[in-house]
Amino acid sequence: MRPQIVLFGDSITEQSFRFGGWGAALAESYVRKADILNRGYGGYNTKWGLFLLHHLFPLDAPTPPVAATIFFGANDAALLGRTSERQHVPLEEYKENLRRIIQHLKKCSPSILVVLITPPPVDEAGRFEQARSMYGDKAMKLPERTNEVTGEYAKQCVELARELGLPSINLWSKMQETEGWQKKFLSDGLHLTAEGNAIVHQEVVKAFNEAGFSAQKMPYDVPHHSEIDGQNPEKAFQLQCPAV
Amino acid sequence: MRPQIVLFGDSITEQSFRFGGWGAALAESYVRKADILNRGYGGYNTKWGLFLLHHLFPLDAPTPPVAATIFFGANDAALLGRTSERQHVPLEEYKENLRRIIQHLKKCSPSILVVLITPPPVDEAGRFEQARSMYGDKAMKLPERTNEVTGEYAKQCVELARELGLPSINLWSKMQETEGWQKKFLSDGLHLTAEGNAIVHQEVVKAFNEAGFSAQKMPYDVPHHSEIDGQNPEKAFQLQCPAV
Repeated sequence: MRPQIVLFGDSITEQSFRFGGWGAALAESYVRKADILNRGYGGYNTKWGLFLLHHLFPLDAPTPPVAATIFFGANDAALLGRTSERQHVPLEEYKENLRRIIQHLKKCSPSILVVLITPPPVDEAGRFEQARSMYGDKAMKLPERTNEVTGEYAKQCVELARELGLPSINLWSKMQETEGWQKKFLSDGLHLTAEGNAIVHQEVVKAFNEAGFSAQKMPYDVPHHSEIDGQNPEKAFQLQCPAV
Repeated sequence: MRPQIVLFGDSITEQSFRFGGWGAALAESYVRKADILNRGYGGYNTKWGLFLLHHLFPLDAPTPPVAATIFFGANDAALLGRTSERQHVPLEEYKENLRRIIQHLKKCSPSILVVLITPPPVDEAGRFEQARSMYGDKAMKLPERTNEVTGEYAKQCVELARELGLPSINLWSKMQETEGWQKKFLSDGLHLTAEGNAIVHQEVVKAFNEAGFSAQKMPYDVPHHSEIDGQNPEKAFQLQCPAV
């Protein structure tokens, strides 16, 4: 069977197969090499994600995933006392939840490649505009997320990766290196534009490559069509797909 | 585990996760409901596809796919005596190969929903332009595929679906209903533009819906975040993800 790469996270993962999405782009990068499974759950934080672990990644799975991205924090970083406080997870608990998710995946498969992704930056003005467009005058007056607080979550995520010797992508920092990141990479102050998706895709491919998990090095599951002799096709299939 | 939908075919399936691709769009349509697995093999015809059946769809698979698209014919219809003749499969053999593919899938899972897709139309002028841009004066002088011959393959595909009582998508006819289909839907006279991909996506969703396999009717695998009580999250997970 084809190796599986799982994308575990919140809405930014769930939406990753929309037009120009980073999940779809990853599926194209690993086409004929690996299956990309979307396990994104809009609105979820790490605390709720923990409930899914045994369901999504049973310990007795015969073929556990070979690689996974863990991409939470945008909801964990929602502020207490604001409109999204239901999703808030305290900073230290966020880090411990991430650790438990990683431990579980490693228990499923000791050799799994885990890449941690921090939440993207937050454009507070973009969040306000989005809220006003949906709720008009009833929109929140105070931000439910701030870029500064989300940055603290990003920091914990990167720190945990360093502690555990795992690759990580500091999307919060990376995106802010580009002028105009607020509108260039974010569609509503939180979710990604096609250009924002392209950054995630590029960084994930880079992290996978650096960890020795590059699509170029993976074998094709079956012969490339150019290897098939039109007169004598069975020859090309003997090794990988022997006649049954 | 999440139900699987397999896309089995040639390059038009293999490329279906590129920017704006119909496979990615289908993954978005079935997000959190089903996994879309890309089993597209560029250059393949039905004859070569037969060699893959036991490899891709083992008869003893514990969880066979719930649905599949079979999308071959663009290469089978390559003409004898022309540059792509290696890929040619005679018309009657094409139909019989499709029948064998369907039989195999039904053996894997008697309840599987199989949707047949005909090859898209061929824009011969577009094929020439593509060949000239790649090979200059050495480009073929005679078309390796014609729209007329590909139409005969499309007809056999639809006829087989009717014989077997399966849904089918006559892409060859459907696309030609729109004026300017040559450039609107095809990028090089054979492969799909984003707009061509959108047609395939729309028709596949329609065929799945009409067969009672609509994403709207499928349950979420785990609770929607709005059902989770921030103070008492375990309650929402009791049914689908009980504590281990």
